[in-house]
Amino acid sequence: MQISSQPYKGTRDFYPKNSIINQVFDIDYMVYQRYILDTWRKTMISLGFDEYDASIIENAEIYLVKSGEELGSKQLYSFIDKGERKIALRPEMTPSLARMVAAKVQNLRYPLRWFSIPNCFRYEAPQKGRLREHWQLNIDILGLEAGYVELEILQAVKILYTNFGANSNNLTVEINSRSVMDQWLEKYKLNDFQTKIFSIIDNWKKVNSEIKRDQLSQFLTSDQIANIFNLCDKQEKEWEDYLELAKKSSDLQIIIQKLNILDTNFEINPVIIRGQAYYTGIVFEVFDKNTTNPRSLFGGGRYDNLMDLFSNNPLPAVGFGSGDVTWFEFLKNWNLLDGSDAFENWKKENIPEKVGILLLNESSINQIYDEVIPKLVLEKKVWDIDYDTTRSENKRYESLKKRGCNEIIKI
Amino acid sequence: MQISSQPYKGTRDFYPKNSIINQVFDIDYMVYQRYILDTWRKTMISLGFDEYDASIIENAEIYLVKSGEELGSKQLYSFIDKGERKIALRPEMTPSLARMVAAKVQNLRYPLRWFSIPNCFRYEAPQKGRLREHWQLNIDILGLEAGYVELEILQAVKILYTNFGANSNNLTVEINSRSVMDQWLEKYKLNDFQTKIFSIIDNWKKVNSEIKRDQLSQFLTSDQIANIFNLCDKQEKEWEDYLELAKKSSDLQIIIQKLNILDTNFEINPVIIRGQAYYTGIVFEVFDKNTTNPRSLFGGGRYDNLMDLFSNNPLPAVGFGSGDVTWFEFLKNWNLLDGSDAFENWKKENIPEKVGILLLNESSINQIYDEVIPKLVLEKKVWDIDYDTTRSENKRYESLKKRGCNEIIKI
Repeated sequence: MQISSQPYKGTRDFYPKNSIINQVFDIDYMVYQRYILDTWRKTMISLGFDEYDASIIENAEIYLVKSGEELGSKQLYSFIDKGERKIALRPEMTPSLARMVAAKVQNLRYPLRWFSIPNCFRYEAPQKGRLREHWQLNIDILGLEAGYVELEILQAVKILYTNFGANSNNLTVEINSRSVMDQWLEKYKLNDFQTKIFSIIDNWKKVNSEIKRDQLSQFLTSDQIANIFNLCDKQEKEWEDYLELAKKSSDLQIIIQKLNILDTNFEINPVIIRGQAYYTGIVFEVFDKNTTNPRSLFGGGRYDNLMDLFSNNPLPAVGFGSGDVTWFEFLKNWNLLDGSDAFENWKKENIPEKVGILLLNESSINQIYDEVIPKLVLEKKVWDIDYDTTRSENKRYESLKKRGCNEIIKI
Repeated sequence: MQISSQPYKGTRDFYPKNSIINQVFDIDYMVYQRYILDTWRKTMISLGFDEYDASIIENAEIYLVKSGEELGSKQLYSFIDKGERKIALRPEMTPSLARMVAAKVQNLRYPLRWFSIPNCFRYEAPQKGRLREHWQLNIDILGLEAGYVELEILQAVKILYTNFGANSNNLTVEINSRSVMDQWLEKYKLNDFQTKIFSIIDNWKKVNSEIKRDQLSQFLTSDQIANIFNLCDKQEKEWEDYLELAKKSSDLQIIIQKLNILDTNFEINPVIIRGQAYYTGIVFEVFDKNTTNPRSLFGGGRYDNLMDLFSNNPLPAVGFGSGDVTWFEFLKNWNLLDGSDAFENWKKENIPEKVGILLLNESSINQIYDEVIPKLVLEKKVWDIDYDTTRSENKRYESLKKRGCNEIIKI
């Protein structure tokens, strides 16, 4: 019996680029994957963050309670193990982070500046920029109340995309604050409708005005609807009021003062809500300006109720996540892979050039192992050997070239 | 409701070392994990190997057919997904490798020198050196018949442990050849009992002589039993005959000639069989000389029937695997972590020292973000900020020290 050689639906095989004849872009090459994960890791370490990790299998209940219906149940890969435990493949890292912190809550040195690069799974129909599995950069600062630390988080966003060679021409960072939004709703006496309003604003860019007006008219007066539209369009008194509240807030005020040190692509935008219920302060998303890549590249914010599930010790937290699938689309669209300075420099440091050893005579093998290879090791050079003395010298020379050897030793 | 903060049974949480107060060795620190995986990766790249990867979820049938009963069914994490597909978490990487090669078999540039560092899962009772999940280094050379390439594989073993600062005092490499064993059995007219004999030899070191003699006497004469004992004890004519066959073989002969360039801890040993049925040539295992770490550190060999499951194109292959759990025990036992040259050098390159920023005055925050941080970025330095002006300067200074900051800027 022979079995299909395709990977499981919605997952990827990563091939070494040098190994594929007639390279094409619809193959996921390992070198790009490594570049993305490595650049994430190096950047976060350079920003003073410490890495952590946990198993991809977690007890399923940590998602069923907290992650909301979509992620926690409909899209969850959950199973019963042979010991009758209900387990799941993690769909996101935050519940594992909360669990790990809860387990050692008295033995940790706060604040924690932590990051992780987990592999996460969601059962859904695969589509462009979104598969059933991805690797996700997660960064979090735990133990600091809203304030200057929000700026640290946004600065990390900037340094991350800068390290990939991207800039304000390629993406926009849109920032809002849940707490400022709450204050604004209160000022306009709309706070009773918070949940409903947030869920409509959350889809503001995707839904046309007629439909939004219809939706809002189910529970708001036409004046109130005009308030919401003005806020979301950033105009009139509504927007002025929002900015005034923002300037007095503990979080947005610092960001507004410091927008100059971030980048021209950072903007305050009241329509950024982010669905999950657990955000309590700033929220932000980073979008590719190339609209063929519709998923956001980063998303995050402040969530001070992180620990509720595991412990009675409250712990303020702010952080974000970013997935490798959207990053790959982004880098490909903007020609930020082969030929870009950032990628070529990374390659030079991480994928050394190979020296090809072309065995002309079987008897040279002693010399290769006794002299040539030890010398290459000392010179920190990498080698590839062609042993096949039955093929023509020319063909073997060309083959070593194509396998990435610039220098070739005939022996 | 509050949920247990323990990780799923048999899996690990990896904490940043700097974050834990009163550090103890029974916590899995991320820095050791990163060191092991990073050293594996850098070594294999330096040996000219190319990295590949696949999803941790595979169609379950690729294990049910090939991996043998234990791994393929009893210990397999297999489930039905929401689309009624039978899927599994990979227990080993080889079936995924075979699948990936089969999928592009006509478009690959042979030989392939490939490696991967997958996370693998097995359902079994957790014990020392063996958990339900581990990360496994897999290296394979595909497309070369038995010969000099076996030496390349063993050289990779040597360079791997050398790069961790280990040497012949810490471990032994024991090598055998399935094909030489088959020839030896034939010479002694024992080839009809190959499967039974191999399964007894496979447990040679663990079982006492009486029991082995009993097991063999069920199907062998006392002379034949003496043959087997002499072979396994490396003595008399049986061992001489083995060595003579080995010197004429396509695989062991090269290794015997070149044992000098390997290390004093490489030895030929007929009791190394390795359970799985798929080996066809050399087999080897690497053992910790400290017997409190009973699991082998590496194991591998030649398996020329790799592709049977997916394709009719035969492809010779030789390779090995090595798990991070046993490596961690090994490095810990031999003091090859903190304080060892290899580890400290890796740390210096990969975990930069931090500069602590001690905020004395709220108004300095501008200067920190406008001047101090950009200067540290230019100098490629890493920082940690203590914003908490309500605590005493001394306490904050000590806290930054403990968080790993050697240099501290007060501002």
